[in-house]
Amino acid sequence: MARIHNFNAGPAAMPQAVLERAQSELLDLGGFGMSVMEMSHRSKEFQAVIDGAEAGIRRLMGISDDYAVLFLQGGASLQFVMLPMNLRRPGKSADYVDTGSWASKAIKEAKITGAANVAWSGKNDNYSRIPKKAELKLAPDAEYLHICTNETIGGIRWAQFPETSAPLIADMSSEILSRTVDVNRFALIYAGAQKNLGPSGLAIVVIRKDLAGRAAENVPIFLRYSTHIADGSMYNTPNTWGIYMIKLTCDWVQAQGGVASIQKLNEKKAGTLYDVIDSSDFWHSPVEKASRSIMNIVWRLPSEDQEEQFLAQAKKEGFVGLKGHRSVGGIRASIYNAVPLEAVDALASFMKDFEVKHG
Amino acid sequence: MARIHNFNAGPAAMPQAVLERAQSELLDLGGFGMSVMEMSHRSKEFQAVIDGAEAGIRRLMGISDDYAVLFLQGGASLQFVMLPMNLRRPGKSADYVDTGSWASKAIKEAKITGAANVAWSGKNDNYSRIPKKAELKLAPDAEYLHICTNETIGGIRWAQFPETSAPLIADMSSEILSRTVDVNRFALIYAGAQKNLGPSGLAIVVIRKDLAGRAAENVPIFLRYSTHIADGSMYNTPNTWGIYMIKLTCDWVQAQGGVASIQKLNEKKAGTLYDVIDSSDFWHSPVEKASRSIMNIVWRLPSEDQEEQFLAQAKKEGFVGLKGHRSVGGIRASIYNAVPLEAVDALASFMKDFEVKHG
Repeated sequence: MARIHNFNAGPAAMPQAVLERAQSELLDLGGFGMSVMEMSHRSKEFQAVIDGAEAGIRRLMGISDDYAVLFLQGGASLQFVMLPMNLRRPGKSADYVDTGSWASKAIKEAKITGAANVAWSGKNDNYSRIPKKAELKLAPDAEYLHICTNETIGGIRWAQFPETSAPLIADMSSEILSRTVDVNRFALIYAGAQKNLGPSGLAIVVIRKDLAGRAAENVPIFLRYSTHIADGSMYNTPNTWGIYMIKLTCDWVQAQGGVASIQKLNEKKAGTLYDVIDSSDFWHSPVEKASRSIMNIVWRLPSEDQEEQFLAQAKKEGFVGLKGHRSVGGIRASIYNAVPLEAVDALASFMKDFEVKHG
Repeated sequence: MARIHNFNAGPAAMPQAVLERAQSELLDLGGFGMSVMEMSHRSKEFQAVIDGAEAGIRRLMGISDDYAVLFLQGGASLQFVMLPMNLRRPGKSADYVDTGSWASKAIKEAKITGAANVAWSGKNDNYSRIPKKAELKLAPDAEYLHICTNETIGGIRWAQFPETSAPLIADMSSEILSRTVDVNRFALIYAGAQKNLGPSGLAIVVIRKDLAGRAAENVPIFLRYSTHIADGSMYNTPNTWGIYMIKLTCDWVQAQGGVASIQKLNEKKAGTLYDVIDSSDFWHSPVEKASRSIMNIVWRLPSEDQEEQFLAQAKKEGFVGLKGHRSVGGIRASIYNAVPLEAVDALASFMKDFEVKHG
């Protein structure tokens, strides 16, 4: 079977070993004579799966018992809604940093149901950098500060997280498990699964338990964090397949040596591409160096015609997903945990060859 | 591989042919060199998958262009929230029929965000029947009438749907695609996928398009039907694996001859079990005959001790999922579309043997 070099931004490449394991167990998990998709979520067999997924996340991220780990449906987009409903009390406001498309979506939802203060926006800089500490205009009585730690479209990330007195909340959809993070600095971390965790269709939420009771009585039961904490993510039928795939992915990350080892490899992968980009004027990075993402590497060629040529040639050579987001154009390589170094090396070689021929 | 007889209430048995197809394509769908889980939801390859799933649902249910078909996350439980937010305008009320656990959950959520009139409740009858037409106390100005067409715990279903002037809305989670339904009688039909459609982690919503614009401006963007209609269920990353599995399941239902054929088989399967139950005083159905479900068959034995014995013996013989819901006890066999007649026949034989030995 010929697997291609997959640089999709999400849903994205998954570890081949994880897919092979899922394939082998698809009709019969653990000798129980049925697929994980056919198991009752109330069975002890599935309880072992979700417990394994939670234990995997906790171990890899170093999460203490002060936090709950939830597996919820609706992706990060539902979190944009649940966050302010649960953690911004009536009449209060929250701070948001606008670093790009994803942060903007979170802000838009927050403003529908109450007040949100944009503490800084990179819009006028085409979202090419993360703000300096002194640039953040934080409100003294904000209920929380929300950041998106990595923006997939702009290709920027918070190398250091901001110091803040308000509870810090982070959308880590596109970099969870890709770098070591001190969870204790955060009140809540959430992430759609479809980049580094598993298939699309669920999100994980890591929430400091003492914050979960803030929701007002008019918040729908299903949209309260407290509901899902009380029922161990099984208030309703969860995405059982997705949770199973997260468990397998956590096992795989652990087998790679854990997050610190994966981070080293991710830095090497990103460095390989940035080295090519920085090696000549043929390539151009629109991103401030200190803000460069190690998950989503974006770059430009001298002209849009050459970019189209590059993409067409790349496709022929078996590289998929390199087209920049339609809102910004250019080239983007998403190199999440599951993208092997070999695929990145192959892309770097292809870039060098292309430059020789077309530069 | 020894597959067991799976009578789970949901997540539940899936067609073996569907699982085998998914297994064979797990690492490479359609020769594109990647799993469906690794495809961008914006790719033309995945667009073909979701288009196929929608076409399958439309064809099997006979859905006209007046309706949108949506694939949303959050299961039926999120629909309990979205429904009143979208279709019950501020200051107005909606009618709900309380036929059991699922209808009750819908009512509970509806009351959090506004007014809901319980037009009838079966609670005092232990949810053992569907109301007669004359029993429904409908409000003349209700925004809609909500019913759950099949209750998995009580084992009852609406054999005929109520006549109503208000738009009729139905939770069909546990019987979608199991019987022919005239969709034009409904304003909105929704169903969690994990019984007859595919794996858990998504719901389908069939909504008359003219109703979708009712949502007030303070309804979060993600929770508006109009948002998901406008973006073809891809406002955010959908559950791509679940949608793929729904497509395969629709293909399978079509190959069985469509919903009318499946319905005949379902009636035969249900009849086989009800015949045993009705054949002797050893078994007892708590459900009014006219209200009997053909998806969830519930029954009792003379004593709880004998029920425990029955369940233990059944488990040994390879029957899974027969324990009644913890809130009501007894025995329950869920016989959704994917449960083969052979499994039902085997269960009926087992029951007869058990009666001979213990009756």
